Amino acid sequence: MTYNLPDHLLALKQQIGEFVAQEIIPGELELLEMPFNEAAKVLAQKRAIAKSKGLFAPHLPKTHGGLGLSLFEFAFISEILATTPFGHYVLNCQAPDIGNMELMMRYASEDIKNTFLKPLMAGEIRSCFSMTEPSFAGSNPIRMGTTAIIEGDEIVINGHKWFTTAADGASFAIVMAITAPEASAYQRASMILVPATTPGFNLKRNISIMGEAGEGYHSHAEIIYENCKVPLANLIGELGSGFKLAQERLGPGRIHHCMRWIGICERAFDMMCHRAATRALSEDKRLGHQQTIQNWIAESRVEIDASRMMVLAAAEKIDRFGAKEAKNEISGIKFYVAGVLMRVLDRALQTHGALGMTDDLLLSFWYRHERGARIYDGPDEVHKSALARSILKGYGLEVKPG
Amino acid sequence: MTYNLPDHLLALKQQIGEFVAQEIIPGELELLEMPFNEAAKVLAQKRAIAKSKGLFAPHLPKTHGGLGLSLFEFAFISEILATTPFGHYVLNCQAPDIGNMELMMRYASEDIKNTFLKPLMAGEIRSCFSMTEPSFAGSNPIRMGTTAIIEGDEIVINGHKWFTTAADGASFAIVMAITAPEASAYQRASMILVPATTPGFNLKRNISIMGEAGEGYHSHAEIIYENCKVPLANLIGELGSGFKLAQERLGPGRIHHCMRWIGICERAFDMMCHRAATRALSEDKRLGHQQTIQNWIAESRVEIDASRMMVLAAAEKIDRFGAKEAKNEISGIKFYVAGVLMRVLDRALQTHGALGMTDDLLLSFWYRHERGARIYDGPDEVHKSALARSILKGYGLEVKPG
Amino acid sequence: MTYNLPDHLLALKQQIGEFVAQEIIPGELELLEMPFNEAAKVLAQKRAIAKSKGLFAPHLPKTHGGLGLSLFEFAFISEILATTPFGHYVLNCQAPDIGNMELMMRYASEDIKNTFLKPLMAGEIRSCFSMTEPSFAGSNPIRMGTTAIIEGDEIVINGHKWFTTAADGASFAIVMAITAPEASAYQRASMILVPATTPGFNLKRNISIMGEAGEGYHSHAEIIYENCKVPLANLIGELGSGFKLAQERLGPGRIHHCMRWIGICERAFDMMCHRAATRALSEDKRLGHQQTIQNWIAESRVEIDASRMMVLAAAEKIDRFGAKEAKNEISGIKFYVAGVLMRVLDRALQTHGALGMTDDLLLSFWYRHERGARIYDGPDEVHKSALARSILKGYGLEVKPG
Amino acid sequence: MTYNLPDHLLALKQQIGEFVAQEIIPGELELLEMPFNEAAKVLAQKRAIAKSKGLFAPHLPKTHGGLGLSLFEFAFISEILATTPFGHYVLNCQAPDIGNMELMMRYASEDIKNTFLKPLMAGEIRSCFSMTEPSFAGSNPIRMGTTAIIEGDEIVINGHKWFTTAADGASFAIVMAITAPEASAYQRASMILVPATTPGFNLKRNISIMGEAGEGYHSHAEIIYENCKVPLANLIGELGSGFKLAQERLGPGRIHHCMRWIGICERAFDMMCHRAATRALSEDKRLGHQQTIQNWIAESRVEIDASRMMVLAAAEKIDRFGAKEAKNEISGIKFYVAGVLMRVLDRALQTHGALGMTDDLLLSFWYRHERGARIYDGPDEVHKSALARSILKGYGLEVKPG
Repeated sequence: MTYNLPDHLLALKQQIGEFVAQEIIPGELELLEMPFNEAAKVLAQKRAIAKSKGLFAPHLPKTHGGLGLSLFEFAFISEILATTPFGHYVLNCQAPDIGNMELMMRYASEDIKNTFLKPLMAGEIRSCFSMTEPSFAGSNPIRMGTTAIIEGDEIVINGHKWFTTAADGASFAIVMAITAPEASAYQRASMILVPATTPGFNLKRNISIMGEAGEGYHSHAEIIYENCKVPLANLIGELGSGFKLAQERLGPGRIHHCMRWIGICERAFDMMCHRAATRALSEDKRLGHQQTIQNWIAESRVEIDASRMMVLAAAEKIDRFGAKEAKNEISGIKFYVAGVLMRVLDRALQTHGALGMTDDLLLSFWYRHERGARIYDGPDEVHKSALARSILKGYGLEVKPG
Repeated sequence: MTYNLPDHLLALKQQIGEFVAQEIIPGELELLEMPFNEAAKVLAQKRAIAKSKGLFAPHLPKTHGGLGLSLFEFAFISEILATTPFGHYVLNCQAPDIGNMELMMRYASEDIKNTFLKPLMAGEIRSCFSMTEPSFAGSNPIRMGTTAIIEGDEIVINGHKWFTTAADGASFAIVMAITAPEASAYQRASMILVPATTPGFNLKRNISIMGEAGEGYHSHAEIIYENCKVPLANLIGELGSGFKLAQERLGPGRIHHCMRWIGICERAFDMMCHRAATRALSEDKRLGHQQTIQNWIAESRVEIDASRMMVLAAAEKIDRFGAKEAKNEISGIKFYVAGVLMRVLDRALQTHGALGMTDDLLLSFWYRHERGARIYDGPDEVHKSALARSILKGYGLEVKPG
Repeated sequence: MTYNLPDHLLALKQQIGEFVAQEIIPGELELLEMPFNEAAKVLAQKRAIAKSKGLFAPHLPKTHGGLGLSLFEFAFISEILATTPFGHYVLNCQAPDIGNMELMMRYASEDIKNTFLKPLMAGEIRSCFSMTEPSFAGSNPIRMGTTAIIEGDEIVINGHKWFTTAADGASFAIVMAITAPEASAYQRASMILVPATTPGFNLKRNISIMGEAGEGYHSHAEIIYENCKVPLANLIGELGSGFKLAQERLGPGRIHHCMRWIGICERAFDMMCHRAATRALSEDKRLGHQQTIQNWIAESRVEIDASRMMVLAAAEKIDRFGAKEAKNEISGIKFYVAGVLMRVLDRALQTHGALGMTDDLLLSFWYRHERGARIYDGPDEVHKSALARSILKGYGLEVKPG
Repeated sequence: MTYNLPDHLLALKQQIGEFVAQEIIPGELELLEMPFNEAAKVLAQKRAIAKSKGLFAPHLPKTHGGLGLSLFEFAFISEILATTPFGHYVLNCQAPDIGNMELMMRYASEDIKNTFLKPLMAGEIRSCFSMTEPSFAGSNPIRMGTTAIIEGDEIVINGHKWFTTAADGASFAIVMAITAPEASAYQRASMILVPATTPGFNLKRNISIMGEAGEGYHSHAEIIYENCKVPLANLIGELGSGFKLAQERLGPGRIHHCMRWIGICERAFDMMCHRAATRALSEDKRLGHQQTIQNWIAESRVEIDASRMMVLAAAEKIDRFGAKEAKNEISGIKFYVAGVLMRVLDRALQTHGALGMTDDLLLSFWYRHERGARIYDGPDEVHKSALARSILKGYGLEVKPG
């Protein structure tokens, strides 16, 4: 599709592409190998360079120091950033911070904005989002065991969360908790900002995932909230609006993942083609002469192109009508693009043979950690079912979720 | 994607949709059951109605009595027409005639245009395209056994063709034959118009395909050309330009198929959803409550959407830069959309259970005859390989075709 | 697996193989093209030859004129017969007659046996089995609209059946009908033998399936039972035992299908390999040099072998412990082997290109009609669910069917 | 299939099952987390227990302190051992040592046997096998850069190997090297035993694979052989017999993998079913009530059963006729069972949601490291092609490898 992109975006794409190629890709494997807190020092330098070049925080409004891109425009940038593991981080548009920024811009009080959002936008602190619980199927923001009880002008949180991405080293968490157990399903929960220094915010462990517990930004924590008290003013949005806010946060969150996956796919595709063109099977035969490899290349090319078109279409719809109107498109790309990602990574890995299993390349990192793409923010099965339910409604059939 | 279609196209879509719903769909199963030559009488009436409503020949320039649509615009119309088996026929934009019209508009002599193209465009006669041969792998317009030898101002054709779609009852064939066996591969063949009344044009049989030999427009002939003489003036284009013309014809031909497949997919999808919403498994359970059916609906929805976006993108590219520039996109959609078509038809059929096997619905017709989608105009394997070769060239690897 | 087959079985395999190769395969395509009632005359001669060679009715006990094979032994023979469309018919072990014979041997009265079973076993008459109804999801012998009301010593049947295979020309039907609507689910129905000449046995039409209504043995009828009276003595088994008998009939029925599918797979595989080895792509390149074709051959070989091993294992279990004990194995092979059949036929067809679409080969016949394999006698989805329910029971979870 | 196993094997299966359940499974996750050299101490105790119970080295002849099982018999034991990561190690039948033992029993000199094989069989030392090279596509034991030149009664090895599994801490390597570069392809290479203490045996690194470099038995080394001299007497088999020996080693090696994969599949299947039966989606709904999960359970069950039957059939054939005769069966199970393993692990992981990504379960370990199953000892593509070539030969077509 010819998208007739405006000149400023074309120029930005070029700049970001060069920045990524010069500043991030060359050291990406070394950075991945380091403990994150060590890598963070190098990354801080890269952020400074990005700022100096006017590339920082492309997703933020210009009034907040960003580049003021629409979601549609950001998709083109996000894809480029995703071709290397630290691309988004360097430009401070990484999950979960990007989602927290969007949420806080809209719903946080001025005090909270000044104290927490401003340094977050500047890349001076990090944050996390604490929703998923081990005892409840994660795809449902209604069923939840964590409670938040109002006591005077304080709110007291108790509960058990996990997969709180990047909690280790974060300055604060936005916690989802039940504030009104008797209310109707969609008005039970609220979101509350909890500084990580609050007594009772107990980071139990960084969960070891696919062989790595990680640390800092590269980690996923299990957290016990134990009589964790914060001022009532730390509520994000109104009391009882947690579900609504979660939906608002998750819609764009899902498309952000999809944008990222397309960038990963392109990088893996490039590696696969390069390998196919150069790996010798014999004097005059390269891997790319094998028809099976050709099949993988052709299928991957088309599936990635299809993914991009659908993600851009969904982004444009969100820009114009909001995430709620685009919920079918979001469900669709969430499982479709995740599936393409799995297949492209798998083919690229297989094309590299034993080398593909090693950490001498990026593929094994993505193969491991991006397996979660089919799970987090709603597993494939939930999104397929949601999309089908919405379609079947148009045919007169009501299907209850899950 | 929001395509910002011009008003005239939106209006036309609506008109064509209504026309198809009112005039064609209601009798479609009966028409399919009739021998074609009987159905043709009913279809002639429908064509008259289409003409009277100004809907006839949407693909032709206005100067030739058509609606003057670009390929991109035509895609939206073609999809609607394809939701019923005779849609394209009624508007006289059916293959293989549409391809012959395009070819003859560009390359036929004025005489030929007056004698053959004019009545073809008016829907007064039909035509066919005679390329494929039983002894040669069909995807290659270079290897071919049919010869055409110039004798004075005549040309004498000998050869054995098959899968000449709609030859039965056609007024003429455009025949691909070797005119210069010693020339370089791409300059050996020429295209020649052969009236069906020419002695030596021997229609041996309508090949029985998937249980039906059919007749008239709904048939695929085996033809023996035996000392079949036509005037040298019947050449379409220059001597030796057969391969080039075939490429020009096949590119758009392939995207025409893809457009059609999307329409079939939408109809099958609609049937599947309707069945899911209404078929009772028990008092209070419908087929659509089953998660497997939901998976099929969701996957189909996304795959059809992806197909449409890619077909429209390819159509736009052809409109702007020509079919040659879009050859990768054409190869990509040819196998991708064919695959989607197979899966969507298969799921729709399975959703209908035993009923899906019967001819009480359209599904079994498409299930049988559209299996060819993965074969005709180049099998999947050839298009995948072509796309991969083109990509690998960019990585410095030359791969010889097939 | 080395099965250490007894000598008599090895000899029989060889004899049947030769008989099929000499007597049936050479004319198979012609027979398929003929209307069945014409083909029946040729087939009657073949049956006579089979009888004279002592090959008739391999599935029947020796005391009933058969060869006395166990189910395990029959599997080897059935596979050979299935390599050609009329193999089973010629040896009188075709569905649905084979199932009716098994059922009647066990449960019919002596009178019924003398009048109906004897000539059926001798191949003098044909029969059918009337269970499926258009208004009810077909996989469930509990929900059903056909009623059979006892009036004195008669029983009066009213109902609407379809997909009654081979009803056209059959001498009798075994009809499944509700005799006790108030009874518990599994005791509502009974089986009743209805001679086709009975008033009220109205064969409405042979349903057109995949383009062919067929006739005689090659047809599937829609039947209206309208005050159709037969003697009470025509009950097969006891009143209310219909569900139990259906289960007994369906278990072996399903494995009979699987045995057949393996034979079809082997024939299609042979055609695919032959084509791959002989079809020229260029002077010195055959289709079989293409890696994609090699993939198909290798995958098909392994999947067919896996299918055979599992079918034999299930047959042995049925022989030893009865069909009920082997219900998980039967569910497993029903969907697995049906899936293998689809894939092998699809690959074989694609390997033949356009020729695969024609009726010049057997493939298109199987492609069309064996699509039903994933539907009849319980669709894939039902068998997968049944198997999973049975497994999950062992983990303490009860799941209700459907 | 009823395999009519002899009583001694049934008893052994039971004993091994209990041993694994009591001694290995309870601590398996802790052992996996430890550095291997620490785990080795615990494992040594387990080995002592296994010896005391007469379960050690089931694959070895009784004369060598083993249980004297045939390959067919060993398959049943190997499957049980494979349900936990250290099962084979504890019984000293782990790759690559098991392959080296088999090879050395047949081809090593008495001296070598006394010095190296004896302690290897007793579990006192470990070994490795050094074949794969980074510069050559690994599936081909003909193309290779490592050379071994005879100098007097010594042999001098130079070359670059990688993926030498378990080299770290091994007492010796069996190295494949070119000894006769001018000889015909299959007589160029030889196998040579190189003690790890030999100067010039330079273990460059343990390659980081899927996030873990590991150590000791759990590692895969890159090794530079630099003027590495060993006595000529260290040749295993004759000079130039390397290729032949590699084939002998790889055939059984591949089936050993397949046996192992079946055990992994069974464990993952058990975890999936357990999760499905217990994970709550709501008050009265468990994950196992979802039809998608049921599909996965049913499909996995059948595919695992098919895998086992084919592996047992191949094992029996090897026992009776040797690995060479069973090469088609071995190629078939190599890619088929590897594919089943991928699918079963993927479904089990997805069934566990986010938990499946963590190292709180075994699934993520297998998901990462068993991805290699489709690569090592010949990637899928090579085995499919090999099987197809062998089949096509029977149809008269010669296809050259790769």
